[in-house]
Amino acid sequence: MPAQLNATAINCSLSAKGRESSTDAMIAVLAEEFAAQDVTVSAPIRIAAHTVKWGVSSNEGDGDEWPRIREQILAADILIFGTPIWMGQPSSVAKLVLERMDAFLDETDEQGRMPSYSKVAVAAIVGNEDGAHHVCSQLFQALNDVGWTIPAVGGCYWVGEAMGSTDFKDLEHRPRMISKTAKMVAANATHLAGLLKKSPYPG
Amino acid sequence: MPAQLNATAINCSLSAKGRESSTDAMIAVLAEEFAAQDVTVSAPIRIAAHTVKWGVSSNEGDGDEWPRIREQILAADILIFGTPIWMGQPSSVAKLVLERMDAFLDETDEQGRMPSYSKVAVAAIVGNEDGAHHVCSQLFQALNDVGWTIPAVGGCYWVGEAMGSTDFKDLEHRPRMISKTAKMVAANATHLAGLLKKSPYPG
Amino acid sequence: MPAQLNATAINCSLSAKGRESSTDAMIAVLAEEFAAQDVTVSAPIRIAAHTVKWGVSSNEGDGDEWPRIREQILAADILIFGTPIWMGQPSSVAKLVLERMDAFLDETDEQGRMPSYSKVAVAAIVGNEDGAHHVCSQLFQALNDVGWTIPAVGGCYWVGEAMGSTDFKDLEHRPRMISKTAKMVAANATHLAGLLKKSPYPG
Amino acid sequence: MPAQLNATAINCSLSAKGRESSTDAMIAVLAEEFAAQDVTVSAPIRIAAHTVKWGVSSNEGDGDEWPRIREQILAADILIFGTPIWMGQPSSVAKLVLERMDAFLDETDEQGRMPSYSKVAVAAIVGNEDGAHHVCSQLFQALNDVGWTIPAVGGCYWVGEAMGSTDFKDLEHRPRMISKTAKMVAANATHLAGLLKKSPYPG
Repeated sequence: MPAQLNATAINCSLSAKGRESSTDAMIAVLAEEFAAQDVTVSAPIRIAAHTVKWGVSSNEGDGDEWPRIREQILAADILIFGTPIWMGQPSSVAKLVLERMDAFLDETDEQGRMPSYSKVAVAAIVGNEDGAHHVCSQLFQALNDVGWTIPAVGGCYWVGEAMGSTDFKDLEHRPRMISKTAKMVAANATHLAGLLKKSPYPG
Repeated sequence: MPAQLNATAINCSLSAKGRESSTDAMIAVLAEEFAAQDVTVSAPIRIAAHTVKWGVSSNEGDGDEWPRIREQILAADILIFGTPIWMGQPSSVAKLVLERMDAFLDETDEQGRMPSYSKVAVAAIVGNEDGAHHVCSQLFQALNDVGWTIPAVGGCYWVGEAMGSTDFKDLEHRPRMISKTAKMVAANATHLAGLLKKSPYPG
Repeated sequence: MPAQLNATAINCSLSAKGRESSTDAMIAVLAEEFAAQDVTVSAPIRIAAHTVKWGVSSNEGDGDEWPRIREQILAADILIFGTPIWMGQPSSVAKLVLERMDAFLDETDEQGRMPSYSKVAVAAIVGNEDGAHHVCSQLFQALNDVGWTIPAVGGCYWVGEAMGSTDFKDLEHRPRMISKTAKMVAANATHLAGLLKKSPYPG
Repeated sequence: MPAQLNATAINCSLSAKGRESSTDAMIAVLAEEFAAQDVTVSAPIRIAAHTVKWGVSSNEGDGDEWPRIREQILAADILIFGTPIWMGQPSSVAKLVLERMDAFLDETDEQGRMPSYSKVAVAAIVGNEDGAHHVCSQLFQALNDVGWTIPAVGGCYWVGEAMGSTDFKDLEHRPRMISKTAKMVAANATHLAGLLKKSPYPG
């Protein structure tokens, strides 16, 4: 019997407000496909709604809510890293989260393994227009630096035509290619996370 | 009376064939707007139709056609750098051209100025989907490293919706935003190239 | 007589504290060279010491200190954009500043010019190791998108050997190449800003 | 008994010549560590010594040597993707190889799996100075797009101090951090490739 797997989703929108975001909408598409793989996905953690301090340590002191978010992320087998695109780049909030994970480099166990080892990360990216491949490149490089494994086809994204302003959450129909890609991302991530859960990196 | 300015356009398509390319189509949009500014634009140089050798010098020996292309580029006041997007990144041909310009670093005059100094570069970018901002970032950084100046709003691009496959050259109508941006790029590049032609960087 | 020019420097360190930062040290190297060009440089604005809210508008409401910083930036002819490198990328604070400038796109005058038009931006970048070219690419693309002009050789940077941990501020001697590059950056930026101050982009 | 694994190494140097390259030197460091994991590593394929045509198909016709290289790459469980850094970016030869792999998107089996599925890719990167993280980001994003899996800590790199000109192959001693990182990269890649060989992605 395969191990039961779970995923934590984070939403790096610039907005703290609870209202519907396109990033949430993309995370929801992936969550559906993860559910079809019997993976439980947490309600997305809206980073901007929390006090996450700037820094590169795991605890930046008084009032810093990163330690709790960090715990939720590391309690899961899979990380769904959701971010909007701004100026063709990941959001500043996404960058903030990556910087806080920089601390993993110094938090290795006796086998030299970071706390993210044997865990899988995937990307959920939305923007009005252009930038998704670049955001993937930035997330994959930084996440991989600090120990995450990236499954085949590790990103699902939507952007509209160049210089457009349509929001993913306002699309009347979910594009067929998005559904197809989300299914691949979820299937690959689940398979890989299952393998690594049973047989973690030896370090 | 303002100085007469001219521009050289290069097309970094992967295809050597003479057939219509979307990159040529985008260069043509910019050329129209440059013409409206009284700037003469060369017929695009299709790099892949020439033997441009790999390397980082200005002459890689027998049969290398870069020296002649280099001369055409440096004879103009403005460079229109056209490239398609492949995998969200500039084409390998674009990268090849940039690498050949790396030689500029060692070709400074007695005031320490590279041959590209006081010249202006702009980008013409097309793809089926996603990648234009990143291509701008790669071109601007590398071109700027080797002496080119980037005018305000130095790039014009088109890409379709995520994971799509429409070609720019097959669009029935030119998007209004593309025309507007091309006009800005051409106006800004022309103004700046005119200023730098009259008053070059002192070094 | 050339116009008197001034520059505003921003420091996008993750730290709010007033203590010496390597980014400040690099800004100081550039400031010396700008002073030699008769350009007045402000004391660096430490962004993290201010409440700059997440968003893409010029005023995010109650307590947002961006409006005043924005004013200081736009009062100058030259922007010295200082950022440390984290994970091979610009700091989240740098990204935050760029996102706030996204509002420039909607703040055009009757000639379609953003408030950053005819102003020049340069980069001051430091890190323990690796990432400076990429940071340049991210800054140049985003700044250029929102109207800034990038002079020839628009970035000065220092990083140590791969996987090292030396800080720029702790170097015993200023590397000769850093001094040489800073001089070029300052001379080129000053020349270009002077031209654009006398003859702004017509729009 | 674990499956016997093998790796193919490619060297995307701009030079076709057989002489020692720094990229080869970095591949050799990784090959030693892979050997310690009982993984057989091929002699590096020097791409520039072959006629690899521009394009995005798996066979660009007469004289194209990509089909044979493609076969060697796909015959292995692990790809060691070696590239030098030029202008802070991957070499044009590296980009050419990635573009040829774009064809994988259309070469899926009946379960929708690309030929690269269940195979692992790692990066071996060298430069005189700066650019390794960015090269990782470009390789990881593009390779992942076309089906490769990236193990935890999937890149090993060396660059010298900013604006320096030392070559990796000329270092008197191998930096301790390089040895340590190479060991991690090889151990993680081997573990992951072993898991995926026994239990491929189901598609």
